[in-house]
Amino acid sequence: MDLDVVFLGTSGSVPTAQRAPSALLVRRGGERLLFDCGEGTQRQLLRSTVGLVELREVFVSHFHADHYLGLPGMLKTFALRGREVDLTIYGPPGLVRLFSSLKRIFGKLTYEVRLEELEAGDVLERDGYNLTTFAPAHGVSAVGYAFVERPRPGRFDVEAADALGVDPPERGLLQRGESIELEDGRVVTPDEVLGPPRPGRKVVLAGDTAPSPIVLEAAREAEVLVHEATFLDEERERARETAHSTALEAAELARDADVSFLALTHLSNRYFGPEIAREARTIFPDTVVPKDFDVIDVPFSERGSPRLVRGGVRRRREEVVEPEREEAVP
Amino acid sequence: MDLDVVFLGTSGSVPTAQRAPSALLVRRGGERLLFDCGEGTQRQLLRSTVGLVELREVFVSHFHADHYLGLPGMLKTFALRGREVDLTIYGPPGLVRLFSSLKRIFGKLTYEVRLEELEAGDVLERDGYNLTTFAPAHGVSAVGYAFVERPRPGRFDVEAADALGVDPPERGLLQRGESIELEDGRVVTPDEVLGPPRPGRKVVLAGDTAPSPIVLEAAREAEVLVHEATFLDEERERARETAHSTALEAAELARDADVSFLALTHLSNRYFGPEIAREARTIFPDTVVPKDFDVIDVPFSERGSPRLVRGGVRRRREEVVEPEREEAVP
Repeated sequence: MDLDVVFLGTSGSVPTAQRAPSALLVRRGGERLLFDCGEGTQRQLLRSTVGLVELREVFVSHFHADHYLGLPGMLKTFALRGREVDLTIYGPPGLVRLFSSLKRIFGKLTYEVRLEELEAGDVLERDGYNLTTFAPAHGVSAVGYAFVERPRPGRFDVEAADALGVDPPERGLLQRGESIELEDGRVVTPDEVLGPPRPGRKVVLAGDTAPSPIVLEAAREAEVLVHEATFLDEERERARETAHSTALEAAELARDADVSFLALTHLSNRYFGPEIAREARTIFPDTVVPKDFDVIDVPFSERGSPRLVRGGVRRRREEVVEPEREEAVP
Repeated sequence: MDLDVVFLGTSGSVPTAQRAPSALLVRRGGERLLFDCGEGTQRQLLRSTVGLVELREVFVSHFHADHYLGLPGMLKTFALRGREVDLTIYGPPGLVRLFSSLKRIFGKLTYEVRLEELEAGDVLERDGYNLTTFAPAHGVSAVGYAFVERPRPGRFDVEAADALGVDPPERGLLQRGESIELEDGRVVTPDEVLGPPRPGRKVVLAGDTAPSPIVLEAAREAEVLVHEATFLDEERERARETAHSTALEAAELARDADVSFLALTHLSNRYFGPEIAREARTIFPDTVVPKDFDVIDVPFSERGSPRLVRGGVRRRREEVVEPEREEAVP
């Protein structure tokens, strides 16, 4: 089951020529979960190899404009394409009130938009994973999101199965956790042929936040922590005033939370990226500062470590294809 | 006095990978007038060699979301930069009501935003030109804009001035329209040394519209007409239903209005550009379909014809510079 994190917008507060405002896509198997939707996100999707897919769920971290201003236009575009499938938008308390204002912009849609306000500590149970929420320290109604896969069955011990005389057709049952009865009447239980359950993957999206013990706990032992680094540490005072973090602070938190891989985002427009990475790596070497259209692959731990794929979803000019007729709108 | 038209967003209704929603900048001398401001316009400016300059005036053609959704984010960005200079936004009736909704998004600003509702036929008098408004046929409250320079003084006839005995220091006065008295008491009037007044330039921005006799009159003898061509003529029925134009119709209008140069924009996402240009040129050869970041230079008629500069404001990678410290925001 593939899992990756696609960076669609990595600027803080205001866009730059290189970086769009906040937006991030988590892809797991066929699922596409969008986290935050800054101005221009629909076009960032169109400019990527992902395309403007029929998202089913959008998760908003908080209601500063750079995190949601792409929603009205994207909702409108879906409607102009004649979308019929529901869309659910999650966010902290205040979501419903915000949409009573935004509705004036996007008007009547061709599909239903469901709004779900989430409190810190809420858990959304999904097929194979949970999304849990926590409270970042940003001074406003906000939630961070922890994507936590459920443990997988242990490794199948082929030698043990051979020794017990379990034939291949019955091995699948054991692997799925069921006991079987052999022809001679002996019962074989899964724990006789399976190793200990293997952990799932954990990806934590902290959102905009000052350094916070709550975020630290939420991030504990994550494969990937996506944390903001709006400033360098020389601007720590400004970071405190605005409830943001410095690269150094984010790195300290990643180290203390024992995460595997740290991705820094939400850069102030005074920074370009390399200086943010350099500062963080003095504390936490496995740090990257993704650009827009970069991807972080998150393999199962036994298959390797998370890695940054530069321009992983950047669309080459020759990949531009004619839009599907059914997606065309006036 | 340089005059050009910068295409920042040329898509219709929804963005594509190549085209942002509507936005167009008219540059005359040091003036920068933005017409429409679709989602992502602030970033289109940042991605261009124009930069996100401190615009003083924005002109909205109508209130479909693809024409104004970039305003809240841009206003917010200006405020985060600490802007103090006023900004005036013009638009058809309904502008004030729209902003009472949008205010919820951009909140308190550091500068004053003035809103001015314009009726068709209003004239804004400027230094050297007028902006006049007219009513496109789009089925909603809307205005088109005609940018019309005032006539310039006629060409100075050096031989006539020599023959009359007018010395160089006094020629400037005559050129500015003042009579002078020579040492021998003779009076020389401007018309003795100036040719007939030379026409200024006219650029007409029709906005979203079905073919319309009002637009045709407004566009008469314009150097440049920017007209929408949302569809090819094979979709004429769809154009009627949505109060848009086909490339053929726009070309017919340009021909009938005797304009010099036609720029087609607001393309449906089913088209790429060349097919729109081909169709229009069967009727009106001097047609272009600008891409984002293309520019149309509009010289005075005695100096040449309008011409398309492909990628005229596209920023090359090496031109990316560090933002000015005073423009940096968290």
